[in-house]
Amino acid sequence: MPDNQRPQRFIDRLESAVRRRRTPVLVGIDPHLELLPPNVGAGDVENRWMLPREKLAEAVRVFCAGVLDVVASLVPAVKFQLAFFEQLGPEGMRVLLELVARARREGLLVILDGKRCDIGSTAAAYAQGMLGPPSVSPWGGDAITVSPYLGEDSLQPFVETAVARQAGIFVLVKTSNPGGGMFQDLVADGMPIYRHVARWVEHQAVTTKGQYGYGDVGGVVGATYREQLVELREAMPHTWFLVPGFGAQGATPRDVAAAFDAAGLGAIVNNSRGILFAYRRREFERFGPARWQEAVEAATRDMIEQLRAETPAGRLVGSL
Amino acid sequence: MPDNQRPQRFIDRLESAVRRRRTPVLVGIDPHLELLPPNVGAGDVENRWMLPREKLAEAVRVFCAGVLDVVASLVPAVKFQLAFFEQLGPEGMRVLLELVARARREGLLVILDGKRCDIGSTAAAYAQGMLGPPSVSPWGGDAITVSPYLGEDSLQPFVETAVARQAGIFVLVKTSNPGGGMFQDLVADGMPIYRHVARWVEHQAVTTKGQYGYGDVGGVVGATYREQLVELREAMPHTWFLVPGFGAQGATPRDVAAAFDAAGLGAIVNNSRGILFAYRRREFERFGPARWQEAVEAATRDMIEQLRAETPAGRLVGSL
Repeated sequence: MPDNQRPQRFIDRLESAVRRRRTPVLVGIDPHLELLPPNVGAGDVENRWMLPREKLAEAVRVFCAGVLDVVASLVPAVKFQLAFFEQLGPEGMRVLLELVARARREGLLVILDGKRCDIGSTAAAYAQGMLGPPSVSPWGGDAITVSPYLGEDSLQPFVETAVARQAGIFVLVKTSNPGGGMFQDLVADGMPIYRHVARWVEHQAVTTKGQYGYGDVGGVVGATYREQLVELREAMPHTWFLVPGFGAQGATPRDVAAAFDAAGLGAIVNNSRGILFAYRRREFERFGPARWQEAVEAATRDMIEQLRAETPAGRLVGSL
Repeated sequence: MPDNQRPQRFIDRLESAVRRRRTPVLVGIDPHLELLPPNVGAGDVENRWMLPREKLAEAVRVFCAGVLDVVASLVPAVKFQLAFFEQLGPEGMRVLLELVARARREGLLVILDGKRCDIGSTAAAYAQGMLGPPSVSPWGGDAITVSPYLGEDSLQPFVETAVARQAGIFVLVKTSNPGGGMFQDLVADGMPIYRHVARWVEHQAVTTKGQYGYGDVGGVVGATYREQLVELREAMPHTWFLVPGFGAQGATPRDVAAAFDAAGLGAIVNNSRGILFAYRRREFERFGPARWQEAVEAATRDMIEQLRAETPAGRLVGSL
C-alpha cells in the first residue's frame, strides 16, 4: 500500500501495523545495564558501573540497535523506557534519539514510556517535546505514556497535542506492579479509583476515535490482574490497551487474552526483559550470551506464536 | 561554618539553607520559550519557534544562568522544571546539566521537577540517574519530585536511593492546578485520596527523619487550596512541604502561611513565572524587557519580604 494511502491518525496506524504483522507484540526496550550481554562493549557485569557513561551509552546503543534490527520485521511497535536512557545522562539521551530514528526508519511505531505528568503549560511542553515526527518533535514519539494523578487539566494538553500531531497517549489506568492497588484500588463513589480514571480515558477515546472504532487516547492496563482486565475491557470498548505484565512479571497468554476484542484487536502486549534478555532464560540458554540476538529473535517468535495460539490475536487478518 | 560541619542529610541541608538565607523562597526555573526576553538570543517571540533548537537552547542557557546569578545569594534552592529542557531535545538536556552544575557551584540546593514514577527497577533507574551529587548521578539533583499513582512499591526505590545518596524526594500529595481534585479529592474509606497518599508520605517522613524533626521524604501540597493545606500541615507534622501555586497561580502570602510550622520552617514556597518573567508584571514594568535581570532580583526580594511580613517565615532565625 503506498504511503499516501496509509491511515494517518495514530490509532489507525497502530491498528494497521498490528494487522500487517499479524501480532500485537510490543517489544519493550528497557536496557537494564546489569543484564546486558558481555559482547556489546559493557564488559563484565561486576565492573560495569566503573566504566565511563559514554562507554555504557555506546554499549546500550549497540545492544538496542541489535534488538531493533531483529524485531523490526516481526512486530508492529517498540516501547522505549526512558529511565534507562536518562540514567546515562546526556549521552544516554543522544543514544535514545538515535535509536528512535532507527526504529522509525525500520518501520516500527515508537512509544516513549516516560509516564509524564504535570500541570497545564508544562504538560504541553512535555507533549510538544515528545509527540510527533522528528520534523516537529525532538524525541519523535508516535505515542507516550502519561500518569493521571493531577487530573483532567493535566491530561488535556497531552490529548490536544496528540491529536494535532497524529500521535497517541496511553494513560495509566491499572498498573501491573504488586503495589499498584494501593491507591488505584481504593473505592470512591462506589467504584475503584482506576475505574474513575478509566471512565475519563474511555470518554477521551470516544472523542478521538479513528476509522476502526478505537481512539488516539489509550490506557495502560496490566495483565497481572486478570479480573480487572476483564472488567476494564468491558467498560472501555473504544480504548486501545497497552498491556504490561507478560512474561517476567508473571502474566500468561491466558491472562492477556482478556485484553482483546473478538477480532484480536484492541491491545498491544508488552514484553521487555523476556525478549531483550532471552539469552538468560532457560528456554533459550542454548544460544548463550554471545548469540543473544538469536535469542531475541527466538523469544519474539515464541511470544507471537503463544499469543496466536492462546488469545484472540490468532484471529488477526493481515489485510486492512 | 566549614563544610565538614554542615549537616549532610538532605532535609537537614535544606533546613540549614532556609535558615541561612532566612527565607523559604524556592525559585522555579521554568524557561517558557514564549516568555523569554528578547535580549537573550531567542529573537522576537513571533519567529522564535523557527529558530534551530541549538539556538533556543543557548538562549535558555543564557537566561537561566542570568537568573541563577541573581538569586543564588538570596534564596536557598532552585527547582528546574525538566519539561522545558526536554522540549529542546538533547541540546536542552545538555543545557540543563550545565545549569545544575552552575547552581550547585553557587551554593544552591537543586530540585529536579520531573514528577517521575514507574515500577520497581525502572523507578530505581530514575532515582539513580537523578539523585545525588554529579560524582554519582549524571543529573545531580539534591531532590526530585515523584508521582504516587503506582503505589508503594513504585515509591520505595526513590526513598531508598534518596536516603543512600543524602538526597530527598517530594511526593505529589495535593497539587495546585484547578483540576487537581478530579482524582485526588475522591473519598475512599472516609478520606480523600490525597489523605491516603499523605498518610504514606508522613510515615516515610518519620522513618527518614533528620536532626530537626523533618524527613527526607517531603510532599507537594499546593497553596491554591488553603483549607486542605491547613488540614495537611496538621496531619503531616514531619513532612516538609514543597508548595506550588504562589503568584501567577493565584495563592497569596496568607494562603501560603498555613504551610509553615510555628518557627517558620516546614515548607519551601515555589515561584516560577512571577520571578523569572517579572519584567512582564505591572509592578516591575519600570525595568522593561532589557533589564529583566533586575526585575528578577526585585521580584525575588519582594516575595521574600512578603513572606517575612505575612507568614511565620518572618520568625526564621539565621543561625542553625
